[in-house]
Amino acid sequence: MGNPSSKTQPILRIQPMGGVGEIGSNMTVFETEKEILIIDYGILFPFDDFYDINYLIVDTKSLNRTKKITIFISHGHEDHIGAIQHLVQELPDAELYAPNFARQLIRKKLDDRKISKNIKVYRENDVIEFDTFDVHPIHVTHSIPETFGILIKSKDGKLATLFISDFKYDLNPLYEKPFNVQKIKDLFKGTHKRICMLDSTNVLKPEGSISESELTDGFDQILAKDKRTFITLFSSNIHRLKTIIEATKKQNRFIVTVGRSIQSYLAAAEAANLIDLADCPIKDITEITNFNDKRIVALLTGCQGDHMGALRRVTVGDHKQFKLNDQDQVVFSSKPIPGNEAKIYKIYNQISEQGAEIITHQEALIHASGHPGRADLEQLINEIDPTDYVPIHGESYFLKIHHEWIQKNFKFKSHLLGNFDSIDIYRDLSFKITQVEVDLPIIIHGKDIELERERISERRKIACNGAVFISIDKKKQDMTITYKGLPMAVDDKLEDIIGLLKGVAFNENRNKDDEIVAEKVRIKCRNIYKNFIGYKPITMVHCI
Amino acid sequence: MGNPSSKTQPILRIQPMGGVGEIGSNMTVFETEKEILIIDYGILFPFDDFYDINYLIVDTKSLNRTKKITIFISHGHEDHIGAIQHLVQELPDAELYAPNFARQLIRKKLDDRKISKNIKVYRENDVIEFDTFDVHPIHVTHSIPETFGILIKSKDGKLATLFISDFKYDLNPLYEKPFNVQKIKDLFKGTHKRICMLDSTNVLKPEGSISESELTDGFDQILAKDKRTFITLFSSNIHRLKTIIEATKKQNRFIVTVGRSIQSYLAAAEAANLIDLADCPIKDITEITNFNDKRIVALLTGCQGDHMGALRRVTVGDHKQFKLNDQDQVVFSSKPIPGNEAKIYKIYNQISEQGAEIITHQEALIHASGHPGRADLEQLINEIDPTDYVPIHGESYFLKIHHEWIQKNFKFKSHLLGNFDSIDIYRDLSFKITQVEVDLPIIIHGKDIELERERISERRKIACNGAVFISIDKKKQDMTITYKGLPMAVDDKLEDIIGLLKGVAFNENRNKDDEIVAEKVRIKCRNIYKNFIGYKPITMVHCI
Repeated sequence: MGNPSSKTQPILRIQPMGGVGEIGSNMTVFETEKEILIIDYGILFPFDDFYDINYLIVDTKSLNRTKKITIFISHGHEDHIGAIQHLVQELPDAELYAPNFARQLIRKKLDDRKISKNIKVYRENDVIEFDTFDVHPIHVTHSIPETFGILIKSKDGKLATLFISDFKYDLNPLYEKPFNVQKIKDLFKGTHKRICMLDSTNVLKPEGSISESELTDGFDQILAKDKRTFITLFSSNIHRLKTIIEATKKQNRFIVTVGRSIQSYLAAAEAANLIDLADCPIKDITEITNFNDKRIVALLTGCQGDHMGALRRVTVGDHKQFKLNDQDQVVFSSKPIPGNEAKIYKIYNQISEQGAEIITHQEALIHASGHPGRADLEQLINEIDPTDYVPIHGESYFLKIHHEWIQKNFKFKSHLLGNFDSIDIYRDLSFKITQVEVDLPIIIHGKDIELERERISERRKIACNGAVFISIDKKKQDMTITYKGLPMAVDDKLEDIIGLLKGVAFNENRNKDDEIVAEKVRIKCRNIYKNFIGYKPITMVHCI
Repeated sequence: MGNPSSKTQPILRIQPMGGVGEIGSNMTVFETEKEILIIDYGILFPFDDFYDINYLIVDTKSLNRTKKITIFISHGHEDHIGAIQHLVQELPDAELYAPNFARQLIRKKLDDRKISKNIKVYRENDVIEFDTFDVHPIHVTHSIPETFGILIKSKDGKLATLFISDFKYDLNPLYEKPFNVQKIKDLFKGTHKRICMLDSTNVLKPEGSISESELTDGFDQILAKDKRTFITLFSSNIHRLKTIIEATKKQNRFIVTVGRSIQSYLAAAEAANLIDLADCPIKDITEITNFNDKRIVALLTGCQGDHMGALRRVTVGDHKQFKLNDQDQVVFSSKPIPGNEAKIYKIYNQISEQGAEIITHQEALIHASGHPGRADLEQLINEIDPTDYVPIHGESYFLKIHHEWIQKNFKFKSHLLGNFDSIDIYRDLSFKITQVEVDLPIIIHGKDIELERERISERRKIACNGAVFISIDKKKQDMTITYKGLPMAVDDKLEDIIGLLKGVAFNENRNKDDEIVAEKVRIKCRNIYKNFIGYKPITMVHCI
């Protein structure tokens, strides 16, 4: 933020560092002269899910670490808290605030890695004070309990910024309080500038999203059928789980959970007083004697087709106790996230091949989005009367559509930001937008370790071309060759190949340095394969 | 087909070998006592498009090669002809029939590989005779010109099988003749059994598909806008190209094609007398002096987000002459094939980031499916009055939905087949269905060479875990270590690792055989890495 003594110093800088341009790795920075407030630090799933990468995280090297830093968590979804262990280790002095449910989830993450950290719980009526601003949590409705928007208001009452990355505008939810629009209106009163930063996830949909409370009938009808029932959904959707539990009770059936993440989300929900498991008809899988009992309602992880999810394991026959048959129904209480369609279709195929019935959101009212359609956004915007607008939480494509929709339909100004772009707001409430080159997200693999892009590129090259390893024994004039990932058609040619390579090593380059011999053999080897199979395997040569 | 002299010998066996269970690699076999008729031999795209695999093809080892074999091509799409070079080399004596347009495309494929083969062109009124059956081509409408259904009728007139894997039921197309339902009705007259094998691609859609002829206005409106225009579509859709060419003419604009496949499809269409390029306002890219000319209508390959497609290259700024800007419009005259959504969304993002407008089938009437919705199927079925039905061309999920829909809504019987399952039809017109384990499709990479599954698995392991290569010089008690695809965090530890491994090689196992030393070092190395990074790289050790 330039020279701190300068009179042209902004009173606030807003800088999204993740989540605008792609869905995932949400992180937004609010920066004043002396302090930094970081909202969320989530993971981004890799575009391609090969290479076994865990996830990507925002590179925070550009943060000004001389300032006081506070981390504020909006809710417990993985794209908002999933990388928190990296951030608390990077910024050990930062205070960490979270809603109670998210705190449970973060605590488990940190405990698993033996990281100790104080997590302060904030509640709706708390006000967290910064040097020149107050932060007011706003209760919003979403697909996970205890989701908050954040309203940052200058102490002089002139500037207010509302930031809600994930919400649905539900004024009639079933298991939580309605979206608290009144608090926003109250806090906005008397302000001169009101910046609204709102969710773009569903901006392609003109209609509003349906309420969670509308799903009760759908599940009642499905569970009234005398069929063993498998239901897959996002494990973190505790309200959806409650709806299913209630429908299960009504039919005198019982639930069994399959997949660790459902179990751990339920445990976290109980710890956060969101559910009383003793009051739920949930049986442990070890209590079940007849796995073909038609009263079984099995709740499965893996609704996005995840390779390790319970759904896939049951579907392909990898699960010990549950195998599908033509008497079952399999219910998808979820929608494919763009990019997962192929994996999910593969699972549909496998279910169909076993004869079970598939029920998706297209056949029954069993899924409601956690994000606002344009009708919802319009209704909310009209209530709160912004002066400025920033579309957030979406692919670049969604953000641009959101931005253009706002410009076309409303009188206030919309500002289109990408990751790392910033808005500086000055004392006279003027804005300056700065576009910055993004620092690419960091790729994490294995034990929370960075895997650099050049190393991924090596993996890609071997995966696409195979690998050859050659050891040259110059003294014995001998050569050992091993390869991986090459077609069997080359196995027969191995002796010929070694013959050619020996020629290069022991005749043509006989008196050369080891390094030169190794390089000549490497080049020759790659060319031989290229002629034969059409591509050059990655080749490593040791000359001893 | 069992013992040929047996009285229980079927008069016809129908066996789909590809395309029922997944979309792609279409191949269906009709087999009589003495002859085999193969319909189509297409490619299947790999489920994940990693490892640079070209495609998968049906394993034909179970074909009875003592019989006379004929190959019959229904139309020129890659999932029907894409692997033909493999089949004609496998079955050099087989006769090959194709429509004229498909023949042009096949000829190019064979010429590129220097394979000579006579390709007989069939036309709608031809009858191709087999020992006990006649084959009648049926002209159908589809998204590529000269698409045929096949009606196989027994010489005694009792049994008729209609096979149409790809079609839309368009009775009012723009550039081709309507779907020839009358010919089917005529040939079905007087038969006792009428088996219909029909397309499942769009069976999830209740409504009918719109006609290609309805797209004219959409393109007229788009090209009336004073904006440089990029249109991406399937290159093989010659009728769509004609519609765009006509709209371009009306606006006095001109076309430039970007991407080899559009150019080669247009050349094939001209060779098959389907288009007169001299009459089209197409400029070669070398003739263009002003690449920002707003009259430009650029036709691009890569509508599915293909990595090497022109669309992606233009979008990411890899194309020499065309860079997008905020004055452009980019038109998707196509729909994402399930599985390609993520790649296409990535391209939407890149287009948005450059400020260009995106127009998809959701914003304008610029795409029509080439396949029948349920309303189309119903209309066709009611016209032709089958006695038996087999859903084909679709994912298992689609086939099952199709099958259940038929059973629920029609009086005749539907038979659900997977790949390699067969229907035997006997002289008394009774059926026997046999379910068979499928032979997995063969993976092809590089110069049309098979890449075995175990070799793919090696590639996968290296892609997910990295690779280490160690050469041990026992005499010098020295060790060389090289690795690929491991995080830089291990670079610093290399000396320590070598130290530990030398201990294993030169102390603990000093007097052991080379093979044992190599194996001990390999195991130790993998465990060291596992402890440190959390996974075991593929490790190869040469002991010299």
